[in-house]
Parts: sequence; C-alpha cells; structure tokens
Amino acid sequence: MSKPLILVSNDDGITSRGIRVLVDIMKDLGEVFVVAPDSPQSGMGHAITIGNTLRLSEEDIFKDVRAFKSSGTPADCVKLAKHYVLKERKPDLVVSGINHGSNTSISVLYSGTMSAAIEGAIEGFPSIGFSLCDYSSDADFSHTEEYVHKIAQQVLENGIPKGVALNVNFPPKRNEAMRGIKICRQARAKWQEDFEERYDPNGRKYFWLAGNFVNFDKGEDNDEWAIANNFASIVPCQYDLTAHHAISQINNDWDWEKMKD
Amino acid sequence: MSKPLILVSNDDGITSRGIRVLVDIMKDLGEVFVVAPDSPQSGMGHAITIGNTLRLSEEDIFKDVRAFKSSGTPADCVKLAKHYVLKERKPDLVVSGINHGSNTSISVLYSGTMSAAIEGAIEGFPSIGFSLCDYSSDADFSHTEEYVHKIAQQVLENGIPKGVALNVNFPPKRNEAMRGIKICRQARAKWQEDFEERYDPNGRKYFWLAGNFVNFDKGEDNDEWAIANNFASIVPCQYDLTAHHAISQINNDWDWEKMKD
Repeated sequence: MSKPLILVSNDDGITSRGIRVLVDIMKDLGEVFVVAPDSPQSGMGHAITIGNTLRLSEEDIFKDVRAFKSSGTPADCVKLAKHYVLKERKPDLVVSGINHGSNTSISVLYSGTMSAAIEGAIEGFPSIGFSLCDYSSDADFSHTEEYVHKIAQQVLENGIPKGVALNVNFPPKRNEAMRGIKICRQARAKWQEDFEERYDPNGRKYFWLAGNFVNFDKGEDNDEWAIANNFASIVPCQYDLTAHHAISQINNDWDWEKMKD
Repeated sequence: MSKPLILVSNDDGITSRGIRVLVDIMKDLGEVFVVAPDSPQSGMGHAITIGNTLRLSEEDIFKDVRAFKSSGTPADCVKLAKHYVLKERKPDLVVSGINHGSNTSISVLYSGTMSAAIEGAIEGFPSIGFSLCDYSSDADFSHTEEYVHKIAQQVLENGIPKGVALNVNFPPKRNEAMRGIKICRQARAKWQEDFEERYDPNGRKYFWLAGNFVNFDKGEDNDEWAIANNFASIVPCQYDLTAHHAISQINNDWDWEKMKD
C-alpha cells in the first residue's frame, strides 16, 4: 500500500512554529505536501481571493517535504493545492495548524485555520484543524504532539463522516498531563468586543479591535468545558448553515397573506 | 411607539448601487444607520481585522441617513456599529446588501454580505442578508424592492428565531414576475474551481481564481431550485457548525483503546 498523501496548511503563515510541528508529525504518517500563506492570516474566516491575483512559489523550508507559499488565504491555499500542486492526486488527509491560539466555540467562524480544514471537507477530503489555546509567542507545543499523531492516524484508519471537518483544540501546557480527548459540540459563547480608540501622528482617529471572550454555556459536553478541564476538544464541523428548526417556524409565524399583497 | 432602528451594511462597499436601493427601502421602515466598508469586500467570508488598525469616518452619502465608512470587513462594520456608532442603542434589524451577485448554497460561507448578517445574529439582533443573483454591472434591482420591504417588515413584526440570520436571494429580473418566496435549506453544491495561469510583465507567474458552480442537489426544497424556478429563496442560517450526527459516529468508530497507549 502506498503512503497516504497528506496536505498541510495553516493561517499563521508558512514560517510559523506551529506548522513546523505539524509537518514533522505528518511526515511520520505519509507523504506530505505543504501549501500555506506567505504571511499571517489570522481572523480571515472563510475568505477567498476573487478581486485580486494569487502568487504561488515553491520554497525549500521543510526537510524532504515539497512546500509552496501563497499570497492567498488559507481557503485559497487548499484550492491551489488541489488544482495546481496535487493536480489529479487526492489527499487522504488535509490538516491545518497547529494554530497559535484558540479556535474553540464561536471562534471557528473567524478562524483561518478552520477555513482551510472546511475547504478540505467541501472537496470531500478528511480534514482536521489543530489549535493550541495559548497565544504566547513561546507557547509549548510538546504536549500536543502525541495527540496530533493519534488523531490523524484515527482519521486515516477510520475516517470521519463525509463533509465533516474536525476542529481540534488543545489546552495550554500545564503541570498535569492532558486528561484525554472529548468529542464535543461548539460552546455557546461570543466575543464581547470593545474598540480601543487611538490617534495617529496626523491626529486622525483609528481603532484596534479588542475584547473578551464570554462563555454562556453551562453544559459539560462542549469544547470550552473540555479545554477548561484540561482535555483536548474535538468538534466535528459541517458547512451546511441551514437552521432547519427555523424553516417551519418562519413558514408558520409569518403573515403570508400580507406577503401576497 | 418609536421607529425601529435599522442598521445597514454590505460587502460591495458603501458607494455600491445595491446598498443605495436597500437604504431607500429601509428609510420607509425605520431610522436608518449605515456602517459599510469603504471598498469592495466580496469573498471576505467571516473575516475580522485583528492584526491591523481600523478606520471609521462619517460620510454624507445618503439623504437624511447617518452613514459611516470603515476600512474593515463587513463583520468589523457590524461590530463597529454596535460598539461605537450605536453605542447603547440596539438595532431592531440588521440588513446587509443588496449584494451584486448570488449568495446561495455554499457561497454563504464565502459571503461578506452574509457575514455581516451572521455577525448581527451573533449579537442577538434579527438580521437579513439580501443578494441579487445577477453579476452584471447594470443589474436591475427593481423587482426585488417590494420583496425586500415585505420581508423586512415581517421580520420586524414577527421576528425570527434567536441566533438565526436570513439568507435571502433573488433571481435575476426576468420577463415574468417573480413567483413568490420559498423558505429553503442550503443546496448541496460547490464551486468547481480552476485557476487561470498568467505571467506578469517581469515573467513571474500569477493566478486568477476562476470556476464553475456545480449543483449536486436533486431536491426542490433548496435555494438553488427556488432561484432556478424564479422564486426568491430564504435560507435561515445559524452559526453553530457542530455536525451533531458525527459526534456519536466518531465516539463509536474510533479505536479509543489505541488512543490511550
């Protein structure tokens, strides 16, 4: 049997520490290709480049791994990988990360890391986004390595449902070892934003987006609970946003006679 | 009773034709504020600006309406509106669009128009994104106006379930009048991308993202079917991406003994 083909991307950029950790682990599991942004793309959500050109160039960054950097977003990178780098070959696994910072709960919507994984899922490839809930520049990834390896191996061996991408988050490294893995739902939480107002040297106002994460979720079956309790969280994510429960409600609640006037 | 407070945004930029149409309709329904990007932001998905500064300035663009343009994404605009422009006042309705181009099916993920509406829903405001499935620069919006008015009025009067944003798409103007409205699910479809390879004046390669929309969905209860059959489509969208069906499947399928090694 030939080695699995593994595509690696991220949103922190091709030179980040997190992608190096991920590439090293994936090399043990298969033949690895890297297509990642040439600069950090945090908060890019599921952006794609449609009004502008895209650059792509092969770089000698990782030992024994073909790697390409792109001017595009994480979602662009997966598209470019499929259509241009891998051409007719289909990856057995798409992995993205390891992100420097949390992508739990509502952050999945804003996450460039997860947009690469979801783009992989749209293309029908088993896909995983990995994030470490530690924003510090010297964050310790060592406790995640064994888990990243095992999760990727499970996906290669047992698969995940079609059209699903896994959102994996790890707690920051603590004195006690991680307690294991929880398969979770997305916590009900949001960012309570605030804007910091400043003035530039010309006296013109500008803003920095700032804010606090607020968790409204009282349950123990969600990703926020898992991370707070030193578990790795895995939320299976899908890209059908339909609020099915709302379809009948709107059909019943609205005044459809009035709509015909 | 005081007039409803309505926030208008979009992703084509504050000077686009679609937002003018939308502002004119909303003025009839309430007190309108506009906070919209200063330049086109199509394909921005749910991007937010976290590594860069944001500008916001009041502009005299719309008659009798306070309007602000921002250097940020559509999601940034809603955040800025809530925290900075409206301050303590909560909008009774957030509307985004009218987008120049379709946001049906999978395009909801890439849509800046819908990211503004979903950001509104995250904040707990009734929110609607409007799009016209016509990419031509001289697209005719006239057939949408009555429907936009009625849909916004229904939402103001009867509400929509909390945490839900409506994704409304209109067919291009045809000779026959629109046949009505369908409350739909998101069609199963995707973009079959291709990249056009070109060379710049210095001989360096670059790419344009191109591609065709492919509809795999055979059902008649989805947005693609509605648009193809000259109905307006309304897909209620939510921002919990959890693939709930996959949780038990992963818990059952994976080899959890191996994970403990």
